[in-house]
Amino acid sequence: MDLKSEIAKAAERIAGHVRRTPVGTLDGLGLAYPVEVKLEQMQHTGSFKARGAFNTLLSGPVPQAGLVAASGGNHGAAVAYAARALGHNARIYVPEIAGPSKIALIRDLGADLVVVPGAYAEAADRAAEWQETTGAMQIHAYDAPATVTGQGTCMAEWEDQGLQADTVLIAVGGGGLIGGALAWLQGRRKVVAVEPERAPTLNAALAAGRPVPVDVSGVAANALGARQIGNICFDLASSQGIESALVSDDAIIAAQATLWKSARQLVEPAGATALAALTSGAYVPQPDERVAVLICGANIAPDPLAK
Amino acid sequence: MDLKSEIAKAAERIAGHVRRTPVGTLDGLGLAYPVEVKLEQMQHTGSFKARGAFNTLLSGPVPQAGLVAASGGNHGAAVAYAARALGHNARIYVPEIAGPSKIALIRDLGADLVVVPGAYAEAADRAAEWQETTGAMQIHAYDAPATVTGQGTCMAEWEDQGLQADTVLIAVGGGGLIGGALAWLQGRRKVVAVEPERAPTLNAALAAGRPVPVDVSGVAANALGARQIGNICFDLASSQGIESALVSDDAIIAAQATLWKSARQLVEPAGATALAALTSGAYVPQPDERVAVLICGANIAPDPLAK
Repeated sequence: MDLKSEIAKAAERIAGHVRRTPVGTLDGLGLAYPVEVKLEQMQHTGSFKARGAFNTLLSGPVPQAGLVAASGGNHGAAVAYAARALGHNARIYVPEIAGPSKIALIRDLGADLVVVPGAYAEAADRAAEWQETTGAMQIHAYDAPATVTGQGTCMAEWEDQGLQADTVLIAVGGGGLIGGALAWLQGRRKVVAVEPERAPTLNAALAAGRPVPVDVSGVAANALGARQIGNICFDLASSQGIESALVSDDAIIAAQATLWKSARQLVEPAGATALAALTSGAYVPQPDERVAVLICGANIAPDPLAK
Repeated sequence: MDLKSEIAKAAERIAGHVRRTPVGTLDGLGLAYPVEVKLEQMQHTGSFKARGAFNTLLSGPVPQAGLVAASGGNHGAAVAYAARALGHNARIYVPEIAGPSKIALIRDLGADLVVVPGAYAEAADRAAEWQETTGAMQIHAYDAPATVTGQGTCMAEWEDQGLQADTVLIAVGGGGLIGGALAWLQGRRKVVAVEPERAPTLNAALAAGRPVPVDVSGVAANALGARQIGNICFDLASSQGIESALVSDDAIIAAQATLWKSARQLVEPAGATALAALTSGAYVPQPDERVAVLICGANIAPDPLAK
């Protein structure tokens, strides 16, 4: 499959259903250089995940049994949103660590929600069971072509909006977002994969030469805590080359505070993880290297406006 | 004074000191039509006020005694930031209603901060006294040409970024931001002045035919609670024509929730006031009328990341 041309088709398919999210350049983030950003957390349901969900739903017929998805929260919200918009039923399995904000978001979107003890992997098992039993269509959170090419529209859109950077930093969970970016860019810009030290799914796979299960925990675990990197992402990352950077939970929390204090963007830990590679020094650009950070999610708990 | 050409000069003067803030178009705000937005709350210190502060400081010599400003909070933070950036001392008077987040922001910027009982007018009296006694340069929060033309760079920038709207909705306190917009636009687009019902400073002036003092209170009072509209703004608004819309505190709080829930932009009540005119129906655009909302501030209390 030619993923790049699939991304171009996905962009046409989902236009009108997803937002073209704002971009800009920020100085004053405590760095000696400016950083281009894309505010993809302004996407419907607060993360990039709506792109892959709409692309999947609009790529073919949906069975009478509707949709099923497992998710740390953001993907589930996106599937619930897209299902409602297009008139389908959605059953969403989330682990307890999704947290109250994401669980409330999915419930408010009218999905049939099941909260599962444990982490993402347990929710994924339950979703697979449901798919088998009912014939519902599963929308995988990161390792399906329509998901990856849907997420790839984010990078395509950013280039269309005038992205200048030599290097783009992207947070990695299961690899849907960065996989889509790699498929779109095909080596035209450097990509830095940023992961929490406590959820180093791609980093471990690159070291092992294949996807391997890792233990996941930490402040961004509900968004970046896939136990094993997706095969689509791994194949792209290992064939195209990518730089891996790991950041501590403290660095993520500090980057989250920086985004709020200096640019009034309140994001979830996963949404600050890519920036954390710069603010912590885990990735240090060359003097003439222009960098960009994809801000990917803002479904923070507790909800700051909850009474 | 030709305010429009002064705005063009101000834009050159402050370039490199202020951010070119992102713009975008948002659907899904609970409205039947899309809304263009400019995320000016991403400006340094969380509001548009940095534009006027830098423009004033860079327009002429600053006395040895430094700067003084009175502010409901946002202007004070901007003056403190600009003063620090350019190596001047700043004494800032804020009323108690500025609230803990804005007071902490100004203090953290290293200004000499005085919290005054009462509202903005009392802080303004104290700032005038200090100016007289010490010879410090006062940077007025809204009714000085360099302030208004500095704020006017925001609308100039938005047009340069491709603003499409027929009509721009802007929140009004003392009139610095909207005055700058009127001076720049010179009637080329319709401007709707949105004020809280409990701080109807421009609305009352337009009804009276001259600036008149009004009682101010409500959820946006520390940002939009000037007791009387500035003369510069009033002259522009009464000569060019403007539509006035009033919104309730409940409508402002609902618009603030909408911005957070549907676009993950967390703003202060004043920053949601212009949108509130649309979401509450206080301003209803014609079927073919394209609208834009200037999001102007996000210094919310309590701080969502404060421990």
